[in-house]
Formats: sequence, C-alpha cells, structure tokens
Amino acid sequence: MARVTVVGAGMMGTALTFPLADAGHEVWLVGTHLDDAIVDALGRTRVHPGLGVALPAGVEVQPFAAAGAAIRAAEVVGVGVSSAGVGWAGEVLAAHARPDVPVVMITKGLALRDGDLELLPDALARRLPPRSCGGPAAPVAVAGPCIAGELARRVPSAVVLTGRDGAILERLAGLLTTPYYHPFVDRDVVGVEACAALKNAYAMGIAFGAGLHERAGGAPGSVAMHNYEAAVFAQSVHEMQMLVRALGGVPATAAGLAGVGDLTVTCNGGRTGRFGKLLGSGLGVARARAALPGATLECLEILAVLRGALPCLERAGRLAAADLPLLGHLAAVALDDAPVAVPFARFFGRNGSRFKTECAP
Amino acid sequence: MARVTVVGAGMMGTALTFPLADAGHEVWLVGTHLDDAIVDALGRTRVHPGLGVALPAGVEVQPFAAAGAAIRAAEVVGVGVSSAGVGWAGEVLAAHARPDVPVVMITKGLALRDGDLELLPDALARRLPPRSCGGPAAPVAVAGPCIAGELARRVPSAVVLTGRDGAILERLAGLLTTPYYHPFVDRDVVGVEACAALKNAYAMGIAFGAGLHERAGGAPGSVAMHNYEAAVFAQSVHEMQMLVRALGGVPATAAGLAGVGDLTVTCNGGRTGRFGKLLGSGLGVARARAALPGATLECLEILAVLRGALPCLERAGRLAAADLPLLGHLAAVALDDAPVAVPFARFFGRNGSRFKTECAP
Repeated sequence: MARVTVVGAGMMGTALTFPLADAGHEVWLVGTHLDDAIVDALGRTRVHPGLGVALPAGVEVQPFAAAGAAIRAAEVVGVGVSSAGVGWAGEVLAAHARPDVPVVMITKGLALRDGDLELLPDALARRLPPRSCGGPAAPVAVAGPCIAGELARRVPSAVVLTGRDGAILERLAGLLTTPYYHPFVDRDVVGVEACAALKNAYAMGIAFGAGLHERAGGAPGSVAMHNYEAAVFAQSVHEMQMLVRALGGVPATAAGLAGVGDLTVTCNGGRTGRFGKLLGSGLGVARARAALPGATLECLEILAVLRGALPCLERAGRLAAADLPLLGHLAAVALDDAPVAVPFARFFGRNGSRFKTECAP
Repeated sequence: MARVTVVGAGMMGTALTFPLADAGHEVWLVGTHLDDAIVDALGRTRVHPGLGVALPAGVEVQPFAAAGAAIRAAEVVGVGVSSAGVGWAGEVLAAHARPDVPVVMITKGLALRDGDLELLPDALARRLPPRSCGGPAAPVAVAGPCIAGELARRVPSAVVLTGRDGAILERLAGLLTTPYYHPFVDRDVVGVEACAALKNAYAMGIAFGAGLHERAGGAPGSVAMHNYEAAVFAQSVHEMQMLVRALGGVPATAAGLAGVGDLTVTCNGGRTGRFGKLLGSGLGVARARAALPGATLECLEILAVLRGALPCLERAGRLAAADLPLLGHLAAVALDDAPVAVPFARFFGRNGSRFKTECAP
C-alpha cells in the first residue's frame, strides 16, 4: 500500500483513482488550476461531472492550492493532465516531488519539437531532476484501450505501461493491478507512444465509412460499409508499423494492445469516430467541428504534428510519403478540407511485405 | 478478358461475379445441387434471394445440370462452395476442368485431417490433377474482410489472394481488380488460411462484451464494455500470431487484412457476433443457437477443429495450451457451456513479447 497523489481531476486522471483505491492505496486527487469546477462538484456530491459516477470512498479530493503539499507527501505521483499540460506538470513535480518518486502519467503521445517528434514521457522526463542513482527520470506512461467512463465503472480493462526503467515499470504494474484493471508492461516506449498518438488519426479515417454509408441513404446494420472500414483498419495498422519503425520502435507493437487494441476502442468510443463520420458524410471540416462544440479533437492535433515532422523523417531517409498513402489522405481531408476518397489501390504498397519478410519464422 | 465459370450460387460465390463482370469478363454462375431454389429465383428475377440485389447484366446463370459443360468451357474457374463442399468441388473440377486452368476459391480456412490441421486450398489441391509442368495444382484462395452483401453493392473492399504459385496469384489479381475490388497478393498460405478460420472463434469472444453490457442493463453508446472488447481483440491478434507460428506461417500476417481486417469485419457483420453477444448475455449455447435458426456458426466448427488438433500440436512441441488462454476459454464456453469469464490476467503470457523481440528493428 502506498500514498498516491494524482494531479489533474479530468476524466482519465480521476478514473485512475478507481483501481488505485480499489487496490488499497491511500489516494489523493488534486485538481489543477483548470479543474476548480470539478473539484467543487466532487466536494459537494462526490460525483465527477464528466464521468457521472461517485469516487471510491477512499479517495480524498484536494484543491489546486494544496497541490504542492499533496505532491510532497506522495510515494507515487500520477500525472493526469492533457498533453498541453505536460510542461506545467513537469515544473510542479520538479518543485515539489520527493527524489526518486515513481511517476505514472496518463498523458501520452507525440509532440513536435524543433521539427522532429518527441515522446510525451520524454517531454516530461527532461523537466524532472535526475534520479539519485544518476540516471534520468523515467516516468511511466499508461497507454492501450481504456475509456475513462468505463474504467470508472470497473469494466475489465487491459492497458500498457511503458517507460525507460524496467524496475519502476514492474513496481507500478504491481501497484495498479486489480481484479478489473490489468496493466501489461511494454518496454517499447517509442512504439507504444507512437501508436497512442496515431490511433486518433486513423480512427477518424475508419469512421469515414459510416458517414459515407449514411450519406448514401443506408441504414445501420450488418450490410453497410464494413468492408471499407476493415480495409482502412488493416492499412492503418500497416502504416502504424511503418511509422513506429521510422521512429526507431518495434513495428509489432502496433499489433498489440497499444495498437490494434486502442484503435478498436477509439473507433467505438467517442468524438474521434463522430468527427470522422461527419467528414465521411461530406460535411466538411468547419461544419464537422461546429457539430462537436467543445470537443478536443486529438486527430487534428496529431495530423498537424505529423505534417510538421514528416519532412525531417523524409530527409533522414526513415520514411517516404508513398509509404503512408492513407495518412496523407487523412491529413488532406482534415487539414486541407479535401473530399474523402480513400486511396485503396495504393494500400500495402512497395513495402507491403517488409514486416512479414523480416518476421518470417 | 476471360471466360470465367463460378461454381456455387451462394452469397459469396455470387458476389464474386460482380467484380468479375465489372472487370469485363464473360461470367457464368453455376448452381450446385444445393442451389436449385437460388437458380430458379435468379432465372425469374435476376435478384439473388440472399444478397437482395440483381446480378450484373453480363452474368449468365446455369443450373447444376450444366456444370460439367460450363467448367469445360472456362478459362478460369471460381469455386463458391462451403467448406463442406470442397471434396465435391475437387471431384467435379478433376472430372471437367481444362488442364492448368486457374482456380480461385472463396472457400477458406482449416479442416481436421488425421488429427492434424489441413488448409482448405491444400484439401482442394490434392483432389485436382497435377499441372502439365508437373507441379501440383495451386488453387488461389480469397480471404480478408469481405461481406458478400457489401461486395454485391460495390462497397470498396480489399481482399487477400493467397496460394502456392506466385505467377497464378498475380494473374488472378490482375483479372479480379476493379475500381472497388482490390485484391492484394500474400504468399503466406498458412497464415492467411489460419487467420481466416480463427477470426470466427475470436470474433465470438469479442462480442461477449456487448452481451455482458446488455445483461447488466446498459444501453448502447460510447460508455459500454468497449475496454473489454478491445482487450479481447488485442489478445485475439496475439493468439492468432501464436497459432500461425505453430502451423509454420508468418505471425505478422495476423496484423494484416487477413487478420485484423477480417476480425474487424466479422465483429461488425453478422451471425458470429450475434451468437457471441447471446453467449455473453448468459443465454447458454443451446438457447443462443436456437435464437439463430438456420445460421451456420463457423465459430463452433473451428473451435471443434482446433480442439481436435491441439493435442497433435502440443505433442510436437509447437504450442502449449497456456499460450492460448483465450482460445481455451472460448472453447469451454461454446463447446462445454462454461460460463463467460474471460481470463484477462493470463493474457499476453509467458510468450507475450516473442513476436516483438524477433521483429525488433
């Protein structure tokens, strides 16, 4: 049993307190400066306004003003901020966290830094002091298929813990395991983080099919555009492998929980799929965005990040635009308002068998 | 342009005539002895009773009595029978087909033969005469995500052509390509056929989540049991890789169209998913089967086949039951009426990183 402070009372940060509390830890949930309304609501009702469920009895809610003290008291720190908040979280942790405290972050994915891609765990790590052994900080990131609203309802969930230090990973996996929350350790930080980011863009493209079907006057059912969706799904996994490889990760990670698992759940669970469906129905970007007011669309963020980084990857010979015909089309649709016309004939292109040849038995 | 005879007027055999006709071939569709009612309906209305759409203008329908002549006249033969009909189809082709005629079969998967597994293209090949070059017959099998009712509505579809002769594969891929039908060649016959069979069993398990959610009183929506479904999906792909490897195929095939692509479409499109959902809702096998009268449940067939073959694979040291905790549970539920209790904690077990290590960059 450990004293755990989770910083950030959004949906996923709060959801993480459920397995932590159910595993017997003493859990403090601390709002950021953006979470005042949530902290108020939790103080009055214990029900999280986004999740719609009451916190476990053992979770103590703290306002932003108490963040420093709560972090100083913690044996494990959870970082529950959005990707935009990683810099801020790093500063707060650097100022208050105990030396060598294990850090687990639900923030995941890729950011653009000086024209190249940076993994968010690395973006946090470089803001933290080195460990007393001399090694750099090694935060653990949680990835894989996990809708916060389901975790908070204790739906069986399998997630991936990734990070650069195996001992910390195993320790956190042990702390987080409960009968319904199953963390699996994966040392391929690059592959896991790349998949965590990319799945948002590709899930948008898979959802085009539902929109095209609706536009054609089709009813939902077993005969729709599922062939189309499945082809885009398989090409998505193929391109995720290409990108993971180009970034120095393990392509097969895209075939696991962080890849196909998270891609599946992103197709089933929420705003990315709704946005893709609206684009497929021919609404255009501006009207599709307007139809989802207030929604953060990670698919747009990652497509912009990749568009910024691809020239660097191409110059280094790590990738060619022709390797990623689907991604190129997704960027054209979502960033340039091009009409939806998925290039199926260019799928599984000149490198179609690259992974298979290398992985032959 | 070629003269193509498709034997078998079921849903998928008939659907294959759409890209063939649209690609400009002269297509004859021949009913088997089981297809008299379909041939009658097609003769009267041109509308296939299962597909609900009219045949392309160029497709000529022939009764079973004309099968021999239609096969003798064909430059390419399509085999559109069920897996149970492969032996029959082999006899008919051996009796009537021209020497060296390319054969494309929509029948796919695994069968039990003398306690071991046999690929259905091999089961057909051994019934056909050798080619004039002296090599064995090399039928081409179509796999990958393709719902017949969608293909017949010309929904964009990407499929896999697999077989033991590269030249025949390329020729058939060229003959079949149309603006909406995209065949991709894959030489890993073992991997493609194993995935084609296994996806039925695993899709059943993924659908447990929807049944459990309904049983718990949940409404459909973005907060349901999607985390559960995604975890089972990822473990399915993992176990498909284990099985493909054990059979001598390329594990990465499970990450492609024939694996994740077909698994996705099977979850979205039909009776396997409905059966799994009923099992997840606690109905039990007998009542779940009774709720789907007349449906062929390939998931039950392949689970029985695998149960028959696993002792042979285990004795040969190619696999251990502990490698496949999900498959073992699926067989217990579907064949022994065990209650649904997916063993998440045993997922990604002792061989969890095997493919990833071998595929490291």
